[in-house]
Amino acid sequence: MTKPEPQMIVIFGATGDLARRKLLPGLLRLLRRGEVTDGMPIVCLGRRDILPSDFLERLQVERFLPGDEPELIERFSRLLHYRQFDLQTGTAEQLTEVLQAVARDYRCGGNKLFYLALPTGAFGAVADLIKPLVSGDGWLRVVFEKPFGADLDSAKRLNDSISAVLREEDIFRVDHYLGKELVQNILFLRFANEIFCCAWNRDAIDNVQITVSETLGVEERAGYYDHSGAIRDMLQNHLLQLLSFTAMEPPTSNDPDAIRDEAARVVEHLRPPETADVVLGQYGAGRIGDRDIRAYRDEDGVAPESVTETYVALRTFVDTPRWQGVPFYLRTGKRLAHRYAEIRIVYKQHRCDGLDTPGRANMIVIRIQPDEGIALAFNVRKPGSDNEAESVLMDFCHHCHFGPNTPEAYEAIMASAMRGDTLLFTRWDWLRASWRFIDRLRAVAPPVVAYQPGSTGPAEGERLPEADQRAWVETTPATRRVSVDPSAVRPTILSMQANRERG
Amino acid sequence: MTKPEPQMIVIFGATGDLARRKLLPGLLRLLRRGEVTDGMPIVCLGRRDILPSDFLERLQVERFLPGDEPELIERFSRLLHYRQFDLQTGTAEQLTEVLQAVARDYRCGGNKLFYLALPTGAFGAVADLIKPLVSGDGWLRVVFEKPFGADLDSAKRLNDSISAVLREEDIFRVDHYLGKELVQNILFLRFANEIFCCAWNRDAIDNVQITVSETLGVEERAGYYDHSGAIRDMLQNHLLQLLSFTAMEPPTSNDPDAIRDEAARVVEHLRPPETADVVLGQYGAGRIGDRDIRAYRDEDGVAPESVTETYVALRTFVDTPRWQGVPFYLRTGKRLAHRYAEIRIVYKQHRCDGLDTPGRANMIVIRIQPDEGIALAFNVRKPGSDNEAESVLMDFCHHCHFGPNTPEAYEAIMASAMRGDTLLFTRWDWLRASWRFIDRLRAVAPPVVAYQPGSTGPAEGERLPEADQRAWVETTPATRRVSVDPSAVRPTILSMQANRERG
Repeated sequence: MTKPEPQMIVIFGATGDLARRKLLPGLLRLLRRGEVTDGMPIVCLGRRDILPSDFLERLQVERFLPGDEPELIERFSRLLHYRQFDLQTGTAEQLTEVLQAVARDYRCGGNKLFYLALPTGAFGAVADLIKPLVSGDGWLRVVFEKPFGADLDSAKRLNDSISAVLREEDIFRVDHYLGKELVQNILFLRFANEIFCCAWNRDAIDNVQITVSETLGVEERAGYYDHSGAIRDMLQNHLLQLLSFTAMEPPTSNDPDAIRDEAARVVEHLRPPETADVVLGQYGAGRIGDRDIRAYRDEDGVAPESVTETYVALRTFVDTPRWQGVPFYLRTGKRLAHRYAEIRIVYKQHRCDGLDTPGRANMIVIRIQPDEGIALAFNVRKPGSDNEAESVLMDFCHHCHFGPNTPEAYEAIMASAMRGDTLLFTRWDWLRASWRFIDRLRAVAPPVVAYQPGSTGPAEGERLPEADQRAWVETTPATRRVSVDPSAVRPTILSMQANRERG
Repeated sequence: MTKPEPQMIVIFGATGDLARRKLLPGLLRLLRRGEVTDGMPIVCLGRRDILPSDFLERLQVERFLPGDEPELIERFSRLLHYRQFDLQTGTAEQLTEVLQAVARDYRCGGNKLFYLALPTGAFGAVADLIKPLVSGDGWLRVVFEKPFGADLDSAKRLNDSISAVLREEDIFRVDHYLGKELVQNILFLRFANEIFCCAWNRDAIDNVQITVSETLGVEERAGYYDHSGAIRDMLQNHLLQLLSFTAMEPPTSNDPDAIRDEAARVVEHLRPPETADVVLGQYGAGRIGDRDIRAYRDEDGVAPESVTETYVALRTFVDTPRWQGVPFYLRTGKRLAHRYAEIRIVYKQHRCDGLDTPGRANMIVIRIQPDEGIALAFNVRKPGSDNEAESVLMDFCHHCHFGPNTPEAYEAIMASAMRGDTLLFTRWDWLRASWRFIDRLRAVAPPVVAYQPGSTGPAEGERLPEADQRAWVETTPATRRVSVDPSAVRPTILSMQANRERG
């Protein structure tokens, strides 16, 4: 792995949840792996007036590690420097001064990585602030947390102000889903495996299903979430990125921009949604197991008459020659029955000559989380039968093979930003196209419908694929593996027949 | 599963090893499954003059079952009838009399299944013997154990004498490998799975490797084996059948004869071998672990100057449009390092655009025995790396999924014969073509070379694929799974490059 150049890492919003839970633990692991070195100070900026020693104490760095590594923690603590700095009122001169004071004790050159672990509303202020720093020694890279805008207009304005100061290759718009190992593996699965790459198209594939199912509610994020909703919180970024990696054309090289070129083209070719393609849901009151669940509208921080969606299901098409006529079904929601993120590539059936077996459609399941891995549902002979097929799983369990040392998403994100590798970050053309699509979707979307907590979402969402005589393939709760309940896949089989009859 | 019609089952050679170890235990399990019923007598014929009660006692039927099922054993014992009968000296009238006497107590109609668990030399006598029985009530099916002839000439003569009496659909030539669940699954894998059927050809597949590796020596079969050798004992039947199922065109239906049509065409299209395509070996003296191993020539019953091969490796081509230029490597031998039978479908590499990853060739591994299952070697991203691929296995473990109740090969063979299902049996046209191929192979084969017991065979066999800049993919002893030792597959990778460079 290419090692990052010497640099200073600067975290804005260092007292926030993201920094504490993800960024700083990620940096600690990068120090252990030798990606962060003892020459790279980590400046933690926050509005709060606390002592650097108090910051360290609150952080409880030892929590970041499973085992006892006092020496590593000591080295890490020496790199951390908390400084009070308010993005709204602070000046570029003050910022420069703070950073220079820290840099004096290190030989990190002039390279700086700014990580803005801040709400999108704070991003605008950054442009002016960093302007004088851009022309300094070394490079300046800036990482922007999502969301990047709230619609095409606001994203454009935000991007204009940033682009006036930074070059595109120095702008790192985070979608932490891209840092997940199994998401990075989509490209490997597709482009490093003969057996998959050659049949990844409309001839072989019947439909694609992308599900990000959460069991949690809005928790402490109600204030933000009630203004965002599932479309902008999840669909616009995570699910559309999964779709992009799944559907993109082979890149001309493994250069990040060659790959991002193709990812952008997918979103640009998404068919504009109609009302019938969208289902919005909001969870009502109910019970999950023996717990009472409050309705979304009764959550603290949510407006009592809120019509914000906590669930969205979408049927869409990628209008490229590769995917003509292949429906992509996407759905995500809160307070659902199971917690998982998966991509399912459902193959066509009955294109094989010969055995007239009642087998089920082949399917590739990319388990993004939990139980990371890749499985293939295929048909074998049912032992002792005449000619009956049974759908079984060929499975690759990622953590069984690689152990627990796979970098977490934010660790991968941080390491990429430090190296200046833009692959795991969202380029402006992708973002622009995704907001254009989302703006249209929000304009045509039907009103939210209620759904039961602990369900798989509203019935309307469950029925969405029926428009194409298809069905979601459900998981079984016990194993999160492919259901072998025939009733769950029969609609897919029927759809194949219907398709054939239609010609 | 279609149930067999009422019938009488007649085993010739009932005191032999095969009947005791495979056929009768298989019939007991078929009784438990309800395929054999209490109305179907099992007449056991042997030359020995023993009492029916002694036969039963010697058999130790309770050994056939893992658990204690006295009622089932009692039912089975009531079906068994030992009678002395010598195929060489007995007459058709005597045979008819014996069978009629047993049939009187059952309502099995006139249907008869004869199972000849006899050496090939005894088959000729059967034709005359059964002639009068063929025209009786019901059908008469005859199962012939392998070997069926010793070359094209003797097989033809044998077949002529049998065909003069029996129709082809009543002749069941056993190749018990076809009864193995994972062999039957080759057709399912290929023709009931979109993802495999569409890329099962020269465009996608680089080479095919079929290995049947045995750790045992000739044991008690030296007398027979020394006149047969690995070519006729294993290659002519088992390995060529595996090749046929692997390489055949899609059948026009799942009718057994439609499938056997295509299997025969494969053997008919095998390229006639040249001397350089064949390696013969014979194991010398040595040690396996802490055991001394006698040389083949020192085994009891083997001629001291014997040049019989205990190992054969073959490189061949199936000259059909589907397989032009794809080498098939076959090998089998005794006293080798590991006991396993496997088919490996090695895919081409670097046909995918995009990521320039140093991944390995995809490979499908059909594990026929032991550890029955199907695995796919494919490339994933090496966690924490820039752009490095690692070859891992996606695995389906057959017995983990289906449990231990999968019918054994001979149980499947017996059930098929009882139903008159010819799929698992060798048709004359296939046999004729295989003997033609084998006769040619034996004519051009080089002299045997010695190899070490406990090795993977002679160096010449190991190097056979090098003629095409390829290599055997070896298994690791611990797991019998695909080796991840890069040196083992590098030659394959190199071969791809060589191929590309040749254009």
